Amino acid sequence: MISKNFLFVPGPSHVPDSIQRAMHQPMSDHRSSEFPELVLSLLKDIKEVFKTTSGNVLLYPASGTGGWEAAIMNTLSPGDQVLIPMYGEFCTRWANLATKHKLNIYPLNSEWGESASAEKIYETLQKDTSNSIKAIFVVHNETSTGVVSDIKAIRKAIDTAQHPALLFVDGVSSIGGIDFCQDEWGVDIAVCGSQKCFMLPPGLAMIGISEKVKSTFKYSKCSNGYFDFSEMIKSNKDGHFPYTPPISLLYGLRESLNLLLDEGLKNVFMRHHRLASGVRNAIKAWGLQLYAVDPLSYSNTVSAVIVPNDIDANLVIKNAFENYNLSLGTGLSISNGRVFRIGHLGAINELMLAGAICGVEMAMLDALIDIELGSGVRAALESYLIENNISSSINQIKR
Amino acid sequence: MISKNFLFVPGPSHVPDSIQRAMHQPMSDHRSSEFPELVLSLLKDIKEVFKTTSGNVLLYPASGTGGWEAAIMNTLSPGDQVLIPMYGEFCTRWANLATKHKLNIYPLNSEWGESASAEKIYETLQKDTSNSIKAIFVVHNETSTGVVSDIKAIRKAIDTAQHPALLFVDGVSSIGGIDFCQDEWGVDIAVCGSQKCFMLPPGLAMIGISEKVKSTFKYSKCSNGYFDFSEMIKSNKDGHFPYTPPISLLYGLRESLNLLLDEGLKNVFMRHHRLASGVRNAIKAWGLQLYAVDPLSYSNTVSAVIVPNDIDANLVIKNAFENYNLSLGTGLSISNGRVFRIGHLGAINELMLAGAICGVEMAMLDALIDIELGSGVRAALESYLIENNISSSINQIKR
Amino acid sequence: MISKNFLFVPGPSHVPDSIQRAMHQPMSDHRSSEFPELVLSLLKDIKEVFKTTSGNVLLYPASGTGGWEAAIMNTLSPGDQVLIPMYGEFCTRWANLATKHKLNIYPLNSEWGESASAEKIYETLQKDTSNSIKAIFVVHNETSTGVVSDIKAIRKAIDTAQHPALLFVDGVSSIGGIDFCQDEWGVDIAVCGSQKCFMLPPGLAMIGISEKVKSTFKYSKCSNGYFDFSEMIKSNKDGHFPYTPPISLLYGLRESLNLLLDEGLKNVFMRHHRLASGVRNAIKAWGLQLYAVDPLSYSNTVSAVIVPNDIDANLVIKNAFENYNLSLGTGLSISNGRVFRIGHLGAINELMLAGAICGVEMAMLDALIDIELGSGVRAALESYLIENNISSSINQIKR
Amino acid sequence: MISKNFLFVPGPSHVPDSIQRAMHQPMSDHRSSEFPELVLSLLKDIKEVFKTTSGNVLLYPASGTGGWEAAIMNTLSPGDQVLIPMYGEFCTRWANLATKHKLNIYPLNSEWGESASAEKIYETLQKDTSNSIKAIFVVHNETSTGVVSDIKAIRKAIDTAQHPALLFVDGVSSIGGIDFCQDEWGVDIAVCGSQKCFMLPPGLAMIGISEKVKSTFKYSKCSNGYFDFSEMIKSNKDGHFPYTPPISLLYGLRESLNLLLDEGLKNVFMRHHRLASGVRNAIKAWGLQLYAVDPLSYSNTVSAVIVPNDIDANLVIKNAFENYNLSLGTGLSISNGRVFRIGHLGAINELMLAGAICGVEMAMLDALIDIELGSGVRAALESYLIENNISSSINQIKR
Repeated sequence: MISKNFLFVPGPSHVPDSIQRAMHQPMSDHRSSEFPELVLSLLKDIKEVFKTTSGNVLLYPASGTGGWEAAIMNTLSPGDQVLIPMYGEFCTRWANLATKHKLNIYPLNSEWGESASAEKIYETLQKDTSNSIKAIFVVHNETSTGVVSDIKAIRKAIDTAQHPALLFVDGVSSIGGIDFCQDEWGVDIAVCGSQKCFMLPPGLAMIGISEKVKSTFKYSKCSNGYFDFSEMIKSNKDGHFPYTPPISLLYGLRESLNLLLDEGLKNVFMRHHRLASGVRNAIKAWGLQLYAVDPLSYSNTVSAVIVPNDIDANLVIKNAFENYNLSLGTGLSISNGRVFRIGHLGAINELMLAGAICGVEMAMLDALIDIELGSGVRAALESYLIENNISSSINQIKR
Repeated sequence: MISKNFLFVPGPSHVPDSIQRAMHQPMSDHRSSEFPELVLSLLKDIKEVFKTTSGNVLLYPASGTGGWEAAIMNTLSPGDQVLIPMYGEFCTRWANLATKHKLNIYPLNSEWGESASAEKIYETLQKDTSNSIKAIFVVHNETSTGVVSDIKAIRKAIDTAQHPALLFVDGVSSIGGIDFCQDEWGVDIAVCGSQKCFMLPPGLAMIGISEKVKSTFKYSKCSNGYFDFSEMIKSNKDGHFPYTPPISLLYGLRESLNLLLDEGLKNVFMRHHRLASGVRNAIKAWGLQLYAVDPLSYSNTVSAVIVPNDIDANLVIKNAFENYNLSLGTGLSISNGRVFRIGHLGAINELMLAGAICGVEMAMLDALIDIELGSGVRAALESYLIENNISSSINQIKR
Repeated sequence: MISKNFLFVPGPSHVPDSIQRAMHQPMSDHRSSEFPELVLSLLKDIKEVFKTTSGNVLLYPASGTGGWEAAIMNTLSPGDQVLIPMYGEFCTRWANLATKHKLNIYPLNSEWGESASAEKIYETLQKDTSNSIKAIFVVHNETSTGVVSDIKAIRKAIDTAQHPALLFVDGVSSIGGIDFCQDEWGVDIAVCGSQKCFMLPPGLAMIGISEKVKSTFKYSKCSNGYFDFSEMIKSNKDGHFPYTPPISLLYGLRESLNLLLDEGLKNVFMRHHRLASGVRNAIKAWGLQLYAVDPLSYSNTVSAVIVPNDIDANLVIKNAFENYNLSLGTGLSISNGRVFRIGHLGAINELMLAGAICGVEMAMLDALIDIELGSGVRAALESYLIENNISSSINQIKR
Repeated sequence: MISKNFLFVPGPSHVPDSIQRAMHQPMSDHRSSEFPELVLSLLKDIKEVFKTTSGNVLLYPASGTGGWEAAIMNTLSPGDQVLIPMYGEFCTRWANLATKHKLNIYPLNSEWGESASAEKIYETLQKDTSNSIKAIFVVHNETSTGVVSDIKAIRKAIDTAQHPALLFVDGVSSIGGIDFCQDEWGVDIAVCGSQKCFMLPPGLAMIGISEKVKSTFKYSKCSNGYFDFSEMIKSNKDGHFPYTPPISLLYGLRESLNLLLDEGLKNVFMRHHRLASGVRNAIKAWGLQLYAVDPLSYSNTVSAVIVPNDIDANLVIKNAFENYNLSLGTGLSISNGRVFRIGHLGAINELMLAGAICGVEMAMLDALIDIELGSGVRAALESYLIENNISSSINQIKR
């Protein structure tokens, strides 16, 4: 096809040209005397993105699911109880994985569209006087519903309950796009993947671990090899890996970190906020609803849009792909057919997103959804125009 | 910069991914036994794009200006009179180049915004009973004004006047995007460049020459070396060149021809028409005027937009580039400050163009031009929706 | 550095240009309606390389170590006994990993440099009348010593002993370069990685599983999530994955398979044999010894060269890298300092290898090893010249 | 084909990875406000390579032949006499081009294999008391014969003869690989191409012009448009071009200049000298002769090798290409069949060249030339070993 695909799924995201080129380098020997210099620079700089100084960030050839498993296998034991706020598909999947590893799930169910409730966590922990809950697994940004949870509040809930449970966070679709503070929020393990806000192809799991969690490794009774944190930490010290790392993704990560840190994390987050606001204004202008119920938990990296009752959301997705070469995210699990999802994360700007919004409008009209053509993109543009006034956008981000 | 530049100047155009990759090949020896196979395939297939079977298309390491010069130096002699409809910047430049080569220019002046007049050409040739006019130079698609001239009508004018003048056409920004029929229209030399509808980087001039014009080479008294058609034709016979060709551009041209012929020239032209119609509808919705005066001569590859009298068009261009990373074309020569130009040629689709139109809207508002936000992009989308009805668009292209 | 690194470690291997370009494609949505077509073509064609028709080949975002772990976790239970011929570093590492997963290792120790002994395996299995040995882990091509073991003979040993143990084979540095016949040899799980004979960057584990082994999954008491074969097989059926696959490596794999199958596996193996023979002739001409003791088990993908007693092999490696931009493999574990290793696998040809051999000669002389300059490369070339006689090389490969 | 072509023709040369990547950038607008910054940096830095501070270097979308024509058309007039030492194919071609532009050639014939004679130039100029010789055209490095001429001595000859003729030099296959001093040697026009020592694809002509030659433009009666130096100089002042420049080649040139200046020109020249010495030693060891007769004029960028009388050199070239994927240069014109040529210029190192020499040996043996296998590469390696002693190589380069 002559024309460019507009990739607006909530990951993998568009890989920018400079990262593509960085990855298109001759293969090299990861055991050479030169390679550790690259590795050490990555391990240092990625800590800035996770906002940890005392912890480590580990890099695995794996998907984000591998990161989830790694978190479990290094720290927990079969039979351990884990508290999991269940508010979307990726919460469910992580819980399922934990079950496979024979953990005992304590689910905190919410309606999809809601965020994880710090209050309920507090209440549950309060009651757990025997400290049988060993860890809490929270999805920071639930990609299936476009909802972001307040990790800071959850940390506060844990601390207030004076409960020793570890806090593990899935930051796969947030870290690098939405503010994430591993140290400040006391996140013991933070799991991320390369193909979202890091703007890389999939295949690299990044796992931030706190200083504190390291002391728990020895108690884990899960068997653990591939994802053994201790070996990784040991090898990483002088820039090595316990086995062959995904070299071309490391080349790409160097450029990814350069892009993020050169733009400035604050600016990256503001850009995601600004772009997301435009999408939300468009949805409102169309007279449609976000799947996310609470404006305070709207995600800045993905929006799930509810279609009218008599419409199949998958038809919108099909039209977008076939008629306009626009890739949208499908509704997962119970939301399938009810929502389509727009990813707005990573290497995107106003005009790319405006084009995507236009594509959504046309795809909806082609699906006979009754919206006013141009209403959404106009609302988005309005927001971009306003947002160009720097001071006002700083105020908004500070809310 | 993390985000992608929206390149909407009327050339160079966006180079699609598959062409970039085709050019990213190891360098090879153009004198190898394998190379001629590539060359012969290019020379054969490019004739389909020029729509010539009896002529040749020659490939030079040069810009389009080199193609203009080549046309002159192979066929004409100092003092020869050439008739040139003057209706835009590139007409002027070609005439200036001809003057440098001591040709005697007979200008047919029109207002910028108008197209070349077949009628005036007819009248002039009628009067030239001594046949002192040796050639007519016509710009098919005048990039400075967004006007396309009717070459078929001009051929008819020449034939009706029974005048032997050669017909040279600048198809730099039309061939491969707007229908061009070298054989049918009796074009003796057609000049094209790689960086427009062929979607390649600049650096390759493509020159279509008719069978008939070959007989004129021997009469030319211009001195001629680099652009000597006879030597090129001779070397090309077995897939060679008289000197080192621009090898990576030839790799790219192979993919360019694949893209154009796989989509089908008819579909390529329809796509350009459909996309251009959207832009024109946007301009109308903004309450602005095209520089092109006659709807029948609106260009499908570039639109020049007149800004309100009290506004400097360059401010729009500056805003677009600095605020939205959108590259627009500046007004050339007498139109500088009065117009900005939107290129809509080559490897583009509805959503890329919709994004660009959004950028134009915001850049105009930032320049305090009084338009209704969203009005243009809405009008464009309307046109794209309608145009998806294939039968109607076939009717439109047939006009 | 202006000049090209000569990468001759035993993996990662040189990534050829066409694979690099295949990977340099725009990112796409793995949940799109188009993606499964690519996936299904990969899953089909890779079976040809593993030489299995009844089994499956599964693709994981992981290194080869991940493949080892996957083999264990899907089929075995803590306490299970596994028989492992221990004849090099990667045997040891796989055994260590098995220990971590609480398997009970029954080691069959050999000197490094020897191959796995089918006879000893037979004897051991004979004695195991209670069938307590559940699986045998064999490294096909031991990268640390440059030794290839006879899997066919091992299969025969198992069958003769009429023992039900599963046969798991590490084919990381053999599959795609040295003949490997999963079905014929009754290999239950074959583990491979992308960065060796598949000529890809690291990050993709390929795991061939037999039809028979599938029935064992349900008995495994290892906890298993990320590497769950059942889920992968289920998702793969219609071209999907249980989680995001390493998309750019899949693009690359498509081209890798095209290269291997277009050249023809037989020709690929003959090329590896021919190139390896040249290296071995060079080593002989230098008066040095291979680490591999038995000519019948010389590896066609890597040669480990023993340096004279008074020399540190790492000095050769350092000289090669610093003086000639040549990357050689270091001696692992007990062989460190005693050997350097030359990888000759993947996308290489005679002249690349000849250049590398020249670099080895110079690096050895720079390390004051007393060899005759030019003797090795001459011997290699002799072998390449002879080998150009196709019929003779066919005879050799048939040995 | 799975394996890499060894490109050892005397141009185009191997394009190194970092230049390929630099060219694989999104297309951009050469009229943008950002573009001039790139252009000005190129125009400044390339002067270092030409070693001119008072002159300019102009960049044209053209081959080296275009550079020859540009030199003529900007400065001379039909009927002007030009003195041309004729000692190889490219001298002949330049003279032929000059004839086409109606210049009057005064040839100074030498046997092919000899260099341009400063003495004969002196004698000829001495006799030209009427100063009818307007310019001297000298090929610095004659690619067809592998001979380099002493431009410094020729400048001295002109000065001693107190003759006002302009000095034009073809440095296509020397500049950037062999020392070239435009200012010091009083070169009025120096012509270069991108595809040799600049390691770029072909398509960019670089033309160094002295301050002095600018005053001659106005006297030229050649018609001149595309290659008009005055317009180029004028546009270049603020980083522009009179027409669309070959943008991707400019991206590449930025990296090319970085590579050359980072390595240091002195080191680049020493590397070329060292590598060339190895090739010459190989030729000697084979018992063959260089086409170049005088050791003082051996070229460091290309060696033409004479084959035994009863052998067709083209068979060697054919064998090299078909049997070993090695591209060698053919003998041009009168030398066809008598010589093959090895290009050793640009982004090459010892091991690449050693591989090529091995290929030449095998291709010669396949052509039944009686050489001792390994003798040439051994001799080359000897020279590379010795040359690694830095102080000795500095002495050699100072000769």
